Amino acid sequence: MTSLSTVHDERIDDVIDRCRHLVHPALRSVTDRLHPRTGLMTRYSFGWCDADGEFHADVREGTGKGIRQVLAVLAAEAVGGRGQDAVPAAVTAELVHAFSLVHDDVMDHDERRRHRPTLWKTYGIGPAVLAGDVLLTLAIETAAHSTGEHAPQALTLLCGCLRALMHGQTEDLDFEDRPWRGPGAVTAAEYRAMAVNKTGALLGMSAAMGALLAGGSPRHVEAFDTAGREVGLAFQIMDDVLGIWGDPARTGKPVGSDLRRRKKTLPVLRALERDGPAARRLAELLAGPDALTNTQVARATELIEDGGGRALVTGEGHAALRRARETLASLPLHPRAGAELTALAHYLIERSH
Amino acid sequence: MTSLSTVHDERIDDVIDRCRHLVHPALRSVTDRLHPRTGLMTRYSFGWCDADGEFHADVREGTGKGIRQVLAVLAAEAVGGRGQDAVPAAVTAELVHAFSLVHDDVMDHDERRRHRPTLWKTYGIGPAVLAGDVLLTLAIETAAHSTGEHAPQALTLLCGCLRALMHGQTEDLDFEDRPWRGPGAVTAAEYRAMAVNKTGALLGMSAAMGALLAGGSPRHVEAFDTAGREVGLAFQIMDDVLGIWGDPARTGKPVGSDLRRRKKTLPVLRALERDGPAARRLAELLAGPDALTNTQVARATELIEDGGGRALVTGEGHAALRRARETLASLPLHPRAGAELTALAHYLIERSH
Repeated sequence: MTSLSTVHDERIDDVIDRCRHLVHPALRSVTDRLHPRTGLMTRYSFGWCDADGEFHADVREGTGKGIRQVLAVLAAEAVGGRGQDAVPAAVTAELVHAFSLVHDDVMDHDERRRHRPTLWKTYGIGPAVLAGDVLLTLAIETAAHSTGEHAPQALTLLCGCLRALMHGQTEDLDFEDRPWRGPGAVTAAEYRAMAVNKTGALLGMSAAMGALLAGGSPRHVEAFDTAGREVGLAFQIMDDVLGIWGDPARTGKPVGSDLRRRKKTLPVLRALERDGPAARRLAELLAGPDALTNTQVARATELIEDGGGRALVTGEGHAALRRARETLASLPLHPRAGAELTALAHYLIERSH
Repeated sequence: MTSLSTVHDERIDDVIDRCRHLVHPALRSVTDRLHPRTGLMTRYSFGWCDADGEFHADVREGTGKGIRQVLAVLAAEAVGGRGQDAVPAAVTAELVHAFSLVHDDVMDHDERRRHRPTLWKTYGIGPAVLAGDVLLTLAIETAAHSTGEHAPQALTLLCGCLRALMHGQTEDLDFEDRPWRGPGAVTAAEYRAMAVNKTGALLGMSAAMGALLAGGSPRHVEAFDTAGREVGLAFQIMDDVLGIWGDPARTGKPVGSDLRRRKKTLPVLRALERDGPAARRLAELLAGPDALTNTQVARATELIEDGGGRALVTGEGHAALRRARETLASLPLHPRAGAELTALAHYLIERSH
């Protein structure tokens, strides 16, 4: 599939850097106006400083890739606008992302993210809930006040995204209480719908709002939203793959952490749906109420692979990516930005290989 | 001061009921479109059902008074509009209020509210964080999509309110880590600023957005915002008084709970500022790191009263209420709605007597 991309990984790093430098001053300035205490927490959540507020010389240390801001900027350029036009969309998207990570880590009781303690682990649950609320409020302010004539539609995109995000998070929490198999079991289809809501909606909004602010047509805006959702599904699937088979040094999470705490992810659900001897042994391993031991995690990992879980979901991830590409291929796009978007999507998925 | 009000308490209950019945269907319908799980949590947070979703015959049981919706409706009527015009403002305000209660209870680790277990105590911290996020998102949607031509200004009011709310909540958390006396001590002035942000901003927004949607002039909108902030300060002060001297059967909270966990409230700060023997003994009682015993709570309560804390803050509460009344008195208002607003403000403050 790499033959379809004309932009190589080294170039993608340059694209990510370019977009980050375009957006960073605006993102930085919205956090500067806060109470010192929430200001510190929001900067920590972006990976710009350590727990005491000391600044990192390299702003990239501890940060994510900032994929959502890249999507906004590239979508603006792809519809023939300037990357600069998309900055409020990029800021909104990164704020929503930071909000969702901070609150999700509280909900999931995750203690580490990006090789550092999570926000609640560092500052406590109460302050982390508040920091998330502040990030969400800043996102709303940005969409309402910095998107000019496009504000009503930008807010519609934002509200739709938030609703999907929370619906997805609710489904994710709901899945925890449902069985692996039998009546009421979580199906792979339900899982995919959750992933589109929880991960895809924000990627879709990032690109769609970027295109909107750069004067893209309604057809462009809708296509970017749809394509972003597909990329989000692919991304979530590959995140699940990394959660089981990823290198902890790269993921920043302990190996097998999803399995250890018996989190329902697509590779497991798909392996269970195959219903062979591997699936039955896997179901037995996952049936207990307690966290899995190291040995059980290793055994479950083998059974998921033997049961075809890894191959099936990798195929599904690539299919979602293909649908995203086809959605965009039907529209006139600026060639360079279009190629960079395609390369970015591949880059997101390929990181697990 | 009651001579200034021409509306008596029995009438106020009727006013509250009238506004509630006007707003309830719209408030109800926004929660109906949610995932069943978050739908249940939001309905519980409004006091419309018990933890299992069983509906109460009397919709008022376990609910708050809905003061914010009343302010929105009365402000609309006071500027000569229809109460109906204010419904989106009332819904937005009640959603923001519910959001803030749900998250504040998590932050403050409060286990009971309105005679029932708090949302996090009933459903867990993670789901409660999510339910709060959902309530805030519904508020944004309502302000963005149901306020018609007034949407940009309604959103400006909402964003200003949210920013103040979170600034106040941050200050409140910050106060916990600061000393009662000496360098870095929390001053009464800082406390009042926090109370205006944390409680006043939303009351101000409720009335201001109600006036806005009913076609009130910019001067009306601003005056309602200012008056609401003053009423909020008075309300918070009286809430502090109730937290120390209130009847648990009426407040729904254990007696002396604020003192027990050494929460900084205005009566204590004011008593400490007096700097007499009572203040010194009070400071000694509050100096330890642990929760106060029943005997210590009783002793501290006496010392605050002896130190003048109760009388001083009651005076401050009435002064804030007077400023609110003067702000509104400078404007042409519909007489009946204006009188009801004044009576409502008194009712809020008098409930502690």
